[in-house]
Amino acid sequence: MFMQNLPTKVRINEVATRDGFQSEALFIPTDKKIEIIDRLSLLGLNKIEVTSFVSPKAIPNLRDAEEVMNSITRNPKVTYVTLVPNEKGAERALATKADEVNLVMSVSESHNLSNMRMSCEQSLAQFIRICELMKGSSTRINASLATSFGCPFEGIIAPERVIKVIHQYIDIGIQSISIADTTGMASPRQVYELCSQVRDIFPALDVTLHLHNTRGMGLANALAGLSAGITQLDASLGGIGGCPYAPGATGNICTEDLVHMLESIGLDTGVDLTTLLVMARELPELLEHDISGQVAKAGLRTETRPLSQSVIDLKARIEKH
Amino acid sequence: MFMQNLPTKVRINEVATRDGFQSEALFIPTDKKIEIIDRLSLLGLNKIEVTSFVSPKAIPNLRDAEEVMNSITRNPKVTYVTLVPNEKGAERALATKADEVNLVMSVSESHNLSNMRMSCEQSLAQFIRICELMKGSSTRINASLATSFGCPFEGIIAPERVIKVIHQYIDIGIQSISIADTTGMASPRQVYELCSQVRDIFPALDVTLHLHNTRGMGLANALAGLSAGITQLDASLGGIGGCPYAPGATGNICTEDLVHMLESIGLDTGVDLTTLLVMARELPELLEHDISGQVAKAGLRTETRPLSQSVIDLKARIEKH
Repeated sequence: MFMQNLPTKVRINEVATRDGFQSEALFIPTDKKIEIIDRLSLLGLNKIEVTSFVSPKAIPNLRDAEEVMNSITRNPKVTYVTLVPNEKGAERALATKADEVNLVMSVSESHNLSNMRMSCEQSLAQFIRICELMKGSSTRINASLATSFGCPFEGIIAPERVIKVIHQYIDIGIQSISIADTTGMASPRQVYELCSQVRDIFPALDVTLHLHNTRGMGLANALAGLSAGITQLDASLGGIGGCPYAPGATGNICTEDLVHMLESIGLDTGVDLTTLLVMARELPELLEHDISGQVAKAGLRTETRPLSQSVIDLKARIEKH
Repeated sequence: MFMQNLPTKVRINEVATRDGFQSEALFIPTDKKIEIIDRLSLLGLNKIEVTSFVSPKAIPNLRDAEEVMNSITRNPKVTYVTLVPNEKGAERALATKADEVNLVMSVSESHNLSNMRMSCEQSLAQFIRICELMKGSSTRINASLATSFGCPFEGIIAPERVIKVIHQYIDIGIQSISIADTTGMASPRQVYELCSQVRDIFPALDVTLHLHNTRGMGLANALAGLSAGITQLDASLGGIGGCPYAPGATGNICTEDLVHMLESIGLDTGVDLTTLLVMARELPELLEHDISGQVAKAGLRTETRPLSQSVIDLKARIEKH
């Protein structure tokens, strides 16, 4: 039965300041980033993916990664994550005492070559060195499986390929993963089937589902994942972010739209939706473009408005007769 | 289990030229409307809601309703629908030999007063007169239940209120209905629960689900409805349309995004998605604004691109070592 196996509690990880800001054309001022992260820290989110320790040449908007990480006010209830693409990034993350590093490799070799400029073999070898480097630190390691459902070069990805990579991750000691629909190609059936398999084969694994709304199926896919036993979702304030390979397409699933939907079906996210909406509504001015999030525009589904005076008058006239 | 009870075949009704065009600021030239309907007629759609026989003062964009209905080339496989708000409209629809008229009443009294300028009692009395008027004609009658899930004035609508109205419809001889989420307030749980009840209580009733994507849940709601036994969905090319009460919010669920999702999970719609996409991509120029449909921007999820030369070179270098 539809929605029969939904979890009662869902953890939400906010990725706007990393996956969102990285693809923005305008530089977002460092103090603005810090302010946004500090405000997000108070909203009941599980993790905040703060920034990425990449080359400033590759992603100029995140060139202030150290300053942001060192200046935010940490809430002990929140896990502060940074993306690290290589050992250099891992060292930088360690120096800023990130709670967690997020490593990324694509299930698709072609996408990994395009995105990381490495073969998957090279990525895995690097993961081993990063795990070595992190030993003894209190920083958690999460590893993402980009293009887990589809790759813009190789097409739809079979679940066996994802399962194989998860085995490779586990073999090198990784116990926390994100299954990512990097370019928004997943269908609800794919999400349900892959997530069910992952829950069955790796019951102890800490699994996050990272979805994009590129083809409008983001929230349907979120429901599919939750029905398959997933309890942790990445999402982005305002739905910002996206893949440079799909111009005009929207980015990550939108945090406030996701929380709004989950609450509408009675799931507990612990997230302060009212303040999320306030923050989402500030984004168009900051980013100088519209956002794809829809609840910020339409308002909560439970919001009502008073009847206009002409309707009240009409009603009175009808009742009189 | 998620998606266990999905139908294998789903009928899609296109409403862009009525629910979409009615809220457009620019007048869409009559010959353009006719051309669009004629092209839509060849795509495997179940119904096309062509126009609305309303007062031209109320909806100037549909002031050419007669001319459009009389000039389109009918495909006998398609049911050509016109919305009629009153007896006058029904007479106009009959004169143009519409295959079906769509009557509308809101489940919420406040919304009916606002939208139809009538009480629900008055609407029902009018439905009876329209049914009388249609007797002997070959024109089918469908009646919509607007605000079946939520009303912007009264808030969330309880399923019992919808069931009560369906009983009232059946009592006056109506056997075909549309359950409408007029302002996009439905949650997937609400859709699943109401549609399940309707299928259980009225197994012989012809039921369409009419959804809006105002708060981003449109496709999740469509899945919920299909899981509850619904096999007929309204949708709008490009996702155009919407409710004047929710400015900035998107309109109906988008036909091409819906068909794309349904095909991605293996459901047969019989609809020519390739041509739908061609037509959706022409809309921004015609309407002079962007559309909310996302597959038209991002492309099919199965579309792939070749690797760039630099990635091919990189791959060769890696393999050499």
